[in-house]
Amino acid sequence: MTVPALDDEVSLLPDPELLRRLAEYESLLEISSALSSTLDLARVLDLALVQAEAICRAETSSIWELDEERGDLFFRVVRGRAAKQIRDLRVPLGRGIVGSVAASGQAEMVNDVAADPRWRGDKTGAFRTRAILAVPLLAHGKVVGVLQMLNPLEGPRFLPEDLRRMQLFAGVLAPAIENARLYAIQRRQFENTVTVIADAIEKRDPYTGGHVRRVVAYCLLLGTEMGLSQDELGELRIAATLHDFGKIATPDAVLRKPAPLDAEEAEVMRRHPADGAEIFGRIRELKKVLPGVRHHHERHDGSGYPDGLAGEEIALVARIIAVADTFDAMTTSRPYRLALDPARAASEIEAGAGSQFCPTVVAAFLALYGRGEFHLKRALEVAGAMFPATADPV
Amino acid sequence: MTVPALDDEVSLLPDPELLRRLAEYESLLEISSALSSTLDLARVLDLALVQAEAICRAETSSIWELDEERGDLFFRVVRGRAAKQIRDLRVPLGRGIVGSVAASGQAEMVNDVAADPRWRGDKTGAFRTRAILAVPLLAHGKVVGVLQMLNPLEGPRFLPEDLRRMQLFAGVLAPAIENARLYAIQRRQFENTVTVIADAIEKRDPYTGGHVRRVVAYCLLLGTEMGLSQDELGELRIAATLHDFGKIATPDAVLRKPAPLDAEEAEVMRRHPADGAEIFGRIRELKKVLPGVRHHHERHDGSGYPDGLAGEEIALVARIIAVADTFDAMTTSRPYRLALDPARAASEIEAGAGSQFCPTVVAAFLALYGRGEFHLKRALEVAGAMFPATADPV
Repeated sequence: MTVPALDDEVSLLPDPELLRRLAEYESLLEISSALSSTLDLARVLDLALVQAEAICRAETSSIWELDEERGDLFFRVVRGRAAKQIRDLRVPLGRGIVGSVAASGQAEMVNDVAADPRWRGDKTGAFRTRAILAVPLLAHGKVVGVLQMLNPLEGPRFLPEDLRRMQLFAGVLAPAIENARLYAIQRRQFENTVTVIADAIEKRDPYTGGHVRRVVAYCLLLGTEMGLSQDELGELRIAATLHDFGKIATPDAVLRKPAPLDAEEAEVMRRHPADGAEIFGRIRELKKVLPGVRHHHERHDGSGYPDGLAGEEIALVARIIAVADTFDAMTTSRPYRLALDPARAASEIEAGAGSQFCPTVVAAFLALYGRGEFHLKRALEVAGAMFPATADPV
Repeated sequence: MTVPALDDEVSLLPDPELLRRLAEYESLLEISSALSSTLDLARVLDLALVQAEAICRAETSSIWELDEERGDLFFRVVRGRAAKQIRDLRVPLGRGIVGSVAASGQAEMVNDVAADPRWRGDKTGAFRTRAILAVPLLAHGKVVGVLQMLNPLEGPRFLPEDLRRMQLFAGVLAPAIENARLYAIQRRQFENTVTVIADAIEKRDPYTGGHVRRVVAYCLLLGTEMGLSQDELGELRIAATLHDFGKIATPDAVLRKPAPLDAEEAEVMRRHPADGAEIFGRIRELKKVLPGVRHHHERHDGSGYPDGLAGEEIALVARIIAVADTFDAMTTSRPYRLALDPARAASEIEAGAGSQFCPTVVAAFLALYGRGEFHLKRALEVAGAMFPATADPV
């Protein structure tokens, strides 16, 4: 980042000004620390605009991200008046003031936009732009976005001092945004990869298309109703995605049999939770999601498999997957039986409380069902809002 | 982080001291920016010790990480005299000075260790500790490690000013380390997950155990010989790990047939590169590794599949996988034929240059083979040094 050098100019500053600079650097260090204390991109961005407006008050502040592939900029986050109306704008690289800041990597302070030949007018009637302060966000020497403030609140014009401060702030902000962005990409890569592999495994069984995605969505619906934390919902989601991975090891003759299984085949089929847990048991980072994989066929009364656990010995995640998994299996057709209608499936779930299923999970299921909210469309909405990739076709 | 408040004490400082503080904060902002400009943990740690020694010169500096599961501390990185001898030490939480700093979360400056009852003596004869300055590294309000300086170089004692500066520095360093650590965990989770799934897919074919791991290792050996960058080697590694994932869709009757395949079966088997590319083609983050998956059965003369590409139309990654894949297939037994010895396999690879294989890749193969370096042990060593998880049993 570029911090102004402590040259003669600074050493000639009067004491009050030195103290002010010292306070400013102190505050920047605090901001830097706050920004780097999370890799959650949404939180970094929100925090960024709060801090930007503390440094330089403006009617609207926004952060634009450069989409290198498309060669344009889009809003990452926007605050203040007219936020809603302008949220979906995209600006080509080099176009307008924000686009030219992104192209040149040079900050701009334009106090009379109407007089600037690059200015192309406000896109909506809801907001009138008078002045723009736009500074580039640079990571690894490349422009990754632009921080933009519109219309100063404290006077008619942005001041050189505002520009200097926003540039300092941008130097602290850019790496925090870039790190959170890289982390999100890495996370999405993992989540999308296990999701498409789950789809591929499932496709070996021609009768269960889309089962895993539906189970994930139902699980998140149940988990939300039961008040799970964001972290717990994240783990539930991964466990639900991985729950049938053990079927990689199930032979075609069993998996694709278009009829009920005989006793021996059923035994082979019943290996998949333990097989799945064995596959992922070798990965330290996935330790937390193992119980969901291994125990999703345990039963509340202890008569399930592979370990015959009962009641709360079974991890909550596994108890939730059990209900979601069974509901989906019942409401979709198999070659040897038709789908039940949801009402019939719901009463089967209700009847299984305390024997097959955990009564607490069934209570959450019935509460949702009673309110008309336990159906696939709603589940996909909830899941999609919580984890945008869940509802996507990836 | 804790930045000393600009209280009356500071405002009473003389000008030169104010300027010094200003320079110090400026430098901290620069350090913070440098530390947060990478998520590569090794680079963050190296940079950290360079900066720590610029702030407070000492005979040895080190960063310890807290292993919460084991309840002890281990060296993340260590510089200076005796670095080698002490690298493998582990210190229980609460034990000694570094252990007590980790337990209490309070910095310590001990200028006469011999007089401190917690001091347990130097673990090796190679180094004599006189004074210790140890500050906790805090992330999200929790101790994640300790930054430790041994024996000041500039005088007999560490000074309160050294302590204050190191605490400021630790406030900037801790989130950078924590972010790099979280990023590494996320990355490892992805890499380990695809590796164990590759193993599981491979296990459906009882005759190819360990094939994927060997191909990955041979690929990295070839890639290194060919001068690929670290990023390119990372992509090569992922592509090699995923190259046979399309076999998820290959029926048992073909995959497990203990005899050569007939024409129709061969056709089914030949679908796996395209199937694999289709699975991962839905993931934006994996775009770069697709050609390695889709084209590892293309041939230099254009007679391969699925797209009949020739020469440099085939991505380099795919050309490397082709040689590694074929070498491993030839040197391991199948139910219907015995393994070739390496010399025989090498001359087959050589004979295939320009027809089946890319001549450049074969040249690299022959250079390695000629130096006696193209064998599994060496390949696993190279791969293990480059990506520690590759050689691990995960």
